Amino acid sequence: MLTLDDLPTPSLLLDHDRFVRNHERLATHLLRLGVPLRPHVKTAKSIPALRQLLRGQPGGVTVSTLREAEACLDAGITDILYAVGVAPQKLPAIAELQARGAAMMVILDSLAAARALAAHRHRRGIGIPALIEIDSDGHRAGVAADSTLLLDIAEALGDDLRGVMTHAGESYRCVTAEEKRAMAAQERDAAVNAALRLRFAGYSAPVVSVGSTPTAHFADDLSGVTEVRAGVYVFQDLVMAGLGVCAVDDIALSVLVTVIGHQAEKGWLITDGGWMALSRDRGTASLPVDQAYGLVCDADGRVLEELVMIGANQEHGIIARRDGQPWDLGAYPVGAHLRILPNHACATAAQFDGYVLLADGKPTGEYWQRFNGFHIGLP
Amino acid sequence: MLTLDDLPTPSLLLDHDRFVRNHERLATHLLRLGVPLRPHVKTAKSIPALRQLLRGQPGGVTVSTLREAEACLDAGITDILYAVGVAPQKLPAIAELQARGAAMMVILDSLAAARALAAHRHRRGIGIPALIEIDSDGHRAGVAADSTLLLDIAEALGDDLRGVMTHAGESYRCVTAEEKRAMAAQERDAAVNAALRLRFAGYSAPVVSVGSTPTAHFADDLSGVTEVRAGVYVFQDLVMAGLGVCAVDDIALSVLVTVIGHQAEKGWLITDGGWMALSRDRGTASLPVDQAYGLVCDADGRVLEELVMIGANQEHGIIARRDGQPWDLGAYPVGAHLRILPNHACATAAQFDGYVLLADGKPTGEYWQRFNGFHIGLP
Repeated sequence: MLTLDDLPTPSLLLDHDRFVRNHERLATHLLRLGVPLRPHVKTAKSIPALRQLLRGQPGGVTVSTLREAEACLDAGITDILYAVGVAPQKLPAIAELQARGAAMMVILDSLAAARALAAHRHRRGIGIPALIEIDSDGHRAGVAADSTLLLDIAEALGDDLRGVMTHAGESYRCVTAEEKRAMAAQERDAAVNAALRLRFAGYSAPVVSVGSTPTAHFADDLSGVTEVRAGVYVFQDLVMAGLGVCAVDDIALSVLVTVIGHQAEKGWLITDGGWMALSRDRGTASLPVDQAYGLVCDADGRVLEELVMIGANQEHGIIARRDGQPWDLGAYPVGAHLRILPNHACATAAQFDGYVLLADGKPTGEYWQRFNGFHIGLP
Repeated sequence: MLTLDDLPTPSLLLDHDRFVRNHERLATHLLRLGVPLRPHVKTAKSIPALRQLLRGQPGGVTVSTLREAEACLDAGITDILYAVGVAPQKLPAIAELQARGAAMMVILDSLAAARALAAHRHRRGIGIPALIEIDSDGHRAGVAADSTLLLDIAEALGDDLRGVMTHAGESYRCVTAEEKRAMAAQERDAAVNAALRLRFAGYSAPVVSVGSTPTAHFADDLSGVTEVRAGVYVFQDLVMAGLGVCAVDDIALSVLVTVIGHQAEKGWLITDGGWMALSRDRGTASLPVDQAYGLVCDADGRVLEELVMIGANQEHGIIARRDGQPWDLGAYPVGAHLRILPNHACATAAQFDGYVLLADGKPTGEYWQRFNGFHIGLP
């Protein structure tokens, strides 16, 4: 039977029991609120993972790259929302995915992009359905729900308009439950109000798409919303635990590393998992508890609270006591295995080609391949 | 003829003229000092790049993963130093590479690893040549040149001992030329002294391997050193420019992005290049000038000094004025191309599958594939 000792290090481990539990938790919550889930592919980027997330859902997915769209399409998943403001140059590739059978939908927040879409429809005779991105929190992109620009974009889009979407990225700064609930309401209100304005002005805007992992979990009313997007929820990570979206015990992803040296005077374990394995993401740096490059677990996944991964070079990790005190490194000799819980699941997973699956804490022999990269056709 | 407009974004651009110039600069410097270069594969991870770096050199390379070793071996490059402290579990994979024709050399800094090597030799009848890693700067791994442990490890290694290696990673904190020169001397002294101690004690230690990009450029005497390792030197990056190792004009790597939106009130350009393209590396944060997520250039590569990439989400970049003032975004409409110079070439390059080559600022049509991943055989 396969054990962790049979795996090369660093390896990316996926605890399938936690994965299923995380998914069921959010799916159940949304079912109660009466809104379907359109899972975001950007975290898992893996077809076997997606198939489990789509059970009992309408079947649509959210993607962050056209490469993700292509991989979904190749697997027979055709209802695809490309949720990054569309660049005019990407329209031919999107049309190619349409021609291959994808029901693509794009997002945009500018007259320039809306006009590029209209010109594309005029040229090709086939449009690309679009949602207008709404700025619900000042975090990044989108137009204000009460802006003139919203109606101008709708006018420029014409028949390609399908509705609105928003992403409350500022929810990643909401530490209390109250803040997250308020942010979820703010996200919903912005999207629903924008859709109502469009409908009152005579436009068809059936789709009201919202989502971020924190708001998806803390929303207590999604009236008027037609779908929720979330990605990291299914793995969870130290940022989500730090925000109170999940417990540390919910984190399904970890990186298996091997101790390759000791610096006894400094109290450092040196491992073969550096930033190439964990990524450079330091998402917990701005949270109440900074987890540096990750929380350390023993080989069986039990958290070693006193330890933290304090440093990362390309292929070297440095593990020390959180309080900086020297300690007896002998418990973790050269060759010992440890597991690191990541700050940010999307970033850490992206450093690997796939997931080694665990059930009951043991490798099942299954490996879920990821699709990395950005584009279709061209590399 | 191919132009930048034909490329999907984000794409990783490699200015071949700068690449050649960077390589020639270091190779010439080391030629003058009479020491050959053993280029580090970890930055470029690409065979066509390596072939150019190996011209006029003995032909050996440095790797940070066994995947790199395998890719080199498959391309006929057989003299391979695996320069991350070897874990006992990796010895079978290394033996497999030896059996396939690789002249592998490993490094270690513990009795445990040395004994694992001796046991491996005893079991297999064939040893794995090893260098003892010397700690020249307290940065990470290695044993002190004047320690008892050095001689104990040599004794445990027996016939597998080939010499010593060190990496002055602290050179990444040396801002003045004087500090870098001093660090280069310190790196050399530690390695040479360790080798002399071993030789005086009766051990054979012909190899004295040193290197980091800053010390390689600023060393003015490498007496006693038999080879220099460096990787990032050939691309350079904002960290190296910030340390005065190169000029910004030497940086050969950039990420081509497209403007996908404007947040006019905030003075933000939104692009389709986020941390998935640039990485989360914030290596300039601790330098005199913090370049945030990267310096911004126009599509032709001219630096736009007043702009900087202030934020990164997974597939979104945020570009603003460095002074935070509002400005006229109209010069960079939706669909415009920009190029971002990265903080850390190794980390940014690792986010892509390969390099789009430029000569005279134009795509040549060449694409240099990278090999990512960690392991041989297994994924």
